[in-house]
Amino acid sequence: MNDLRRLSLNQITIDQWSLAEVVEACAGAGVPSIGVWRHKLDGDAAAAAHVVRDAGLRVSSLCRGGFFAAATEAERRERDDDNRRAVEEAAELGTDVLVLVCGPASGRDLAAGRAQVAEGIERLLPHAIDHGVRLGIEPLHPMFVSERSVVCSLGEASDLAERFDAAQVGVVIDVYHVFWEAGVERQIEHVRGRILGFHVCDWVTPTNVLAGRAMMGDGVIDLRRLRAAVERAGYDGPIEVEVISEELRQRPGEEVLSLAIDRYRAEV
Amino acid sequence: MNDLRRLSLNQITIDQWSLAEVVEACAGAGVPSIGVWRHKLDGDAAAAAHVVRDAGLRVSSLCRGGFFAAATEAERRERDDDNRRAVEEAAELGTDVLVLVCGPASGRDLAAGRAQVAEGIERLLPHAIDHGVRLGIEPLHPMFVSERSVVCSLGEASDLAERFDAAQVGVVIDVYHVFWEAGVERQIEHVRGRILGFHVCDWVTPTNVLAGRAMMGDGVIDLRRLRAAVERAGYDGPIEVEVISEELRQRPGEEVLSLAIDRYRAEV
Repeated sequence: MNDLRRLSLNQITIDQWSLAEVVEACAGAGVPSIGVWRHKLDGDAAAAAHVVRDAGLRVSSLCRGGFFAAATEAERRERDDDNRRAVEEAAELGTDVLVLVCGPASGRDLAAGRAQVAEGIERLLPHAIDHGVRLGIEPLHPMFVSERSVVCSLGEASDLAERFDAAQVGVVIDVYHVFWEAGVERQIEHVRGRILGFHVCDWVTPTNVLAGRAMMGDGVIDLRRLRAAVERAGYDGPIEVEVISEELRQRPGEEVLSLAIDRYRAEV
Repeated sequence: MNDLRRLSLNQITIDQWSLAEVVEACAGAGVPSIGVWRHKLDGDAAAAAHVVRDAGLRVSSLCRGGFFAAATEAERRERDDDNRRAVEEAAELGTDVLVLVCGPASGRDLAAGRAQVAEGIERLLPHAIDHGVRLGIEPLHPMFVSERSVVCSLGEASDLAERFDAAQVGVVIDVYHVFWEAGVERQIEHVRGRILGFHVCDWVTPTNVLAGRAMMGDGVIDLRRLRAAVERAGYDGPIEVEVISEELRQRPGEEVLSLAIDRYRAEV
């Protein structure tokens, strides 16, 4: 059984709650950290930071920057501006990890989309360094390649991260996105020193693309094996429970939080 | 514009038709080959073979053998028997390619499931050699990992195929399953000499896991780039149009066939 010291609740798991509600419930339940989403900040990261700090909680990461590929120069500038704001918000919240969901290509050319991602990270990096924020490239499952991320394997995320300094750019490993990879344990070892986050949930059969993730233990992911691999590779940071699920959104937040804690203890 | 010499219609694209209907329509439309599914044989491959031959058509491949991982020994034997029948049916139909959809793991242990796939191929191979049938490992998109195939990338399929003689075990490349891979063109070059089939359709956004494939040209896959890669790697065999789509199943078969031919000419 896990104690809760490394547990972080990614707030998208209880999207029905405001940030203040998540903070209050986590503090009450002994969950020490939360993962924050930008759309929950109401544009005021400073106020959010106060709420979190006053409750004695830490922010393990901010979701998300990214979506680098753009069809026009104007759009590209807009996204760069938004990514710089994301860096500032992360710093304000006291987390040094900004999760990057890299975005789809703007057309059919995935190689061009991937090049735009690398260039986008390069443009964002000086601002991130100035603010003491590390950029965590999160590879997304290949079923999201045309909607959310052209970076769709841990190997690819690792290749991309390695173009930059390990102290500044790393990867965020979400079991849901990478558990299917044949060489995943070897890849995890390969990204030693660059693991900026570890997210858990579960994969159910049959799956549902958009919001069909499940609570740990309800699906087929070998969570213990992946956690062991991440720890062998030296990661000892927060373990974020991040379950994007239509079904969980229909249930009372208290119930979801309690289930997340129980399953974290028993299954991760 | 492509002429139709290399076009093959995989019959699942017009699942509303019987084999006899597909054969008649393809012969009438000048489509020289079809890809056959076993559930359309009504248990009588010899009769089906007559229908195909009488119409002057060829069978480019038979779908499918596989589903190797089994929870029990009895189940494993049943699947082995069924795979041997699939080999015999392929030979009867006059195709030397049996497409393998390798199946999911029987539990959470993907490595064990993958080992069972390799062992299953090894057990099936002597029977395939006896019948002059080559086994084509088709990697499936990772979103099918827990339902249909633990082999979910071209790299993995290639590693698996390379344990066997190139004249006996190869890979089937379906753009839908592999287009997202960052190194796909390099991987295609790597499997030179082992490409036993090339399947085309398209990927639409947002996607739908089970039957959401689209006709070539309606989605985001860079078909020409992938076809060029396959041809650079020496493949000059049939190009199967295989579109598994709920929407197409609701339309008259003639309309789907005509669209498949037009799009093959214009987009592939």
